[in-house]
Amino acid sequence: MSPHVEIPGLTLGRDDFERARANVAPHVYHTPLLTSRSLSEATGFDVRLKAELFQRGGSYKVRGPLNVIANLTEEERARGIICSSAGNHSQGVAIAAAQYGIPAVVLMAENATKSKIAATEGYGAEVVLHGTIWDEANERALELVEERGLTYVHPFDDPRLIAGQGTLGLEILEDWPEVELAVIPIGGGGLISGNAMSLRSINPDIRVIGVESSGAPAMKRSVESGELVTLEEVSCIIDGLRVKRVGDNTASIVSRFVENVVTLPDEEIFDAVLWLMTRAKLVAEGAAASGVAALLAGLIDAPPGTKVVCVLSGGNLDVEQLRGLRWN
Amino acid sequence: MSPHVEIPGLTLGRDDFERARANVAPHVYHTPLLTSRSLSEATGFDVRLKAELFQRGGSYKVRGPLNVIANLTEEERARGIICSSAGNHSQGVAIAAAQYGIPAVVLMAENATKSKIAATEGYGAEVVLHGTIWDEANERALELVEERGLTYVHPFDDPRLIAGQGTLGLEILEDWPEVELAVIPIGGGGLISGNAMSLRSINPDIRVIGVESSGAPAMKRSVESGELVTLEEVSCIIDGLRVKRVGDNTASIVSRFVENVVTLPDEEIFDAVLWLMTRAKLVAEGAAASGVAALLAGLIDAPPGTKVVCVLSGGNLDVEQLRGLRWN
Repeated sequence: MSPHVEIPGLTLGRDDFERARANVAPHVYHTPLLTSRSLSEATGFDVRLKAELFQRGGSYKVRGPLNVIANLTEEERARGIICSSAGNHSQGVAIAAAQYGIPAVVLMAENATKSKIAATEGYGAEVVLHGTIWDEANERALELVEERGLTYVHPFDDPRLIAGQGTLGLEILEDWPEVELAVIPIGGGGLISGNAMSLRSINPDIRVIGVESSGAPAMKRSVESGELVTLEEVSCIIDGLRVKRVGDNTASIVSRFVENVVTLPDEEIFDAVLWLMTRAKLVAEGAAASGVAALLAGLIDAPPGTKVVCVLSGGNLDVEQLRGLRWN
Repeated sequence: MSPHVEIPGLTLGRDDFERARANVAPHVYHTPLLTSRSLSEATGFDVRLKAELFQRGGSYKVRGPLNVIANLTEEERARGIICSSAGNHSQGVAIAAAQYGIPAVVLMAENATKSKIAATEGYGAEVVLHGTIWDEANERALELVEERGLTYVHPFDDPRLIAGQGTLGLEILEDWPEVELAVIPIGGGGLISGNAMSLRSINPDIRVIGVESSGAPAMKRSVESGELVTLEEVSCIIDGLRVKRVGDNTASIVSRFVENVVTLPDEEIFDAVLWLMTRAKLVAEGAAASGVAALLAGLIDAPPGTKVVCVLSGGNLDVEQLRGLRWN
């Protein structure tokens, strides 16, 4: 995939990620890199799983906000941060704010699941319900930024956030310096942007391949067309992959640092959730299992024996989705 | 619980377990000891989980047979080993035999699940189907012992097997020498027998508490009455806990080395399966989750802050049981 996106765009280097790590590491787990005999035998690669599903809050999403807060002034911190999300991002923001002892406001739509509201409040954040869809909640969040002087934490496109998410790659390289290829899920693109740059800032030979749901290929279409595409329709029910429009920064970074974006349907991704449960004894959410799905589907093109890391980005599997798995 | 069982009984010491470990360790994973913030917060203890569900074959059951085989003569090995089980024991026997390159025969009832037959054959064992219930299959196994000169590997009461299962305790102590209390599931009693002795052979102050289903309290009743009790009826659907009669050796060992046996109903154990999935992102089978269930139910009596290890003995959760979990 050649660099179609014209804007030179954001590039972060090794120093940026080392600085981000100093901000993030004291507050997160260095999650384990698990070997998987089953997956290695099934694919012919030497596969390891970055088990970020064991991270605080159940996903990588706490890393980015920690680095955002670290880069705020004392005055900005005192006012607090805000985001809008009913998913892992809100938990990440809430946990990060609690670590720094600063206020956090999370906007959710009025029909948000009670358990998610309770979980976010449980981390100490103030939950504000507004509107019936995310866009309305987000609009209110941006108003509150003005009214209260809060700092808005974007779910994927803020350079400080991207640097924070990329700290995961430094852990991978520390545990497995020989890694040759990384398979990383793409929603808005924050995770893959940070880690494509952090991995390749240390070893430019590392190949990075992204995975999207074929029902929401916003990144693939943007990178292929050379401009940000807003999907008119999304046919994907997987939290974290169901994205209509990726970011300016993330699209530019993926164009330049990611070799390829592969896609596959939700059904195959859910089968990989079940595969991970029965074979690896791990509960990965759909987005997190998409890399395993791509591996099992033969979509990752590399020589036998290639050292492949697959990022299991989170484990907050929705109970409703569990019920719908094809058990046989 | 005082030593009611009159027979002095089997006692294994530190040397026995060190020897067993030399036999077992080259063929198994040293499984991780995971911290669990959620479980520690919920209980007030410092809880770690021995994640034996990551073991080869998905449970601890491979350890014992490896030590049995190591103690056979060359001639006995050449003839091979045999067991009867439709569960984790048969997979443990099959994997252990494959590691030593010796024949293994596994007897199952004719109505055994196809996937379990295939899995056992996949490890290289010869599966023989006989009868419609386990007793009939087991009778045929004992006939084959005579006919073919095979060595019978008992699922829980063989001292060599018990020593092998106890190697798990040495790993716990290596990773966490300060451990004070171990919570271990009881089916036939092989796991708790081996590990109560291995843990206490190194540190006699370590307390060991066993957990049974209240629908199948064969060990509790035996230890309390001072003689082996055969339950007339069993009201438990959890593989590995559904046992009518424990072993002579295991009952004697539990009487002497285990402080207490607690029980709780299947429903609460299944809730702990779900708790582990949603909170710890781990897939533990019912028997393995029973210790967590006991902790969450407040059945483990110890001072706040006690260093508790909970053995997650396996992860081969039956898909039918997953369907039946109380999701909300």
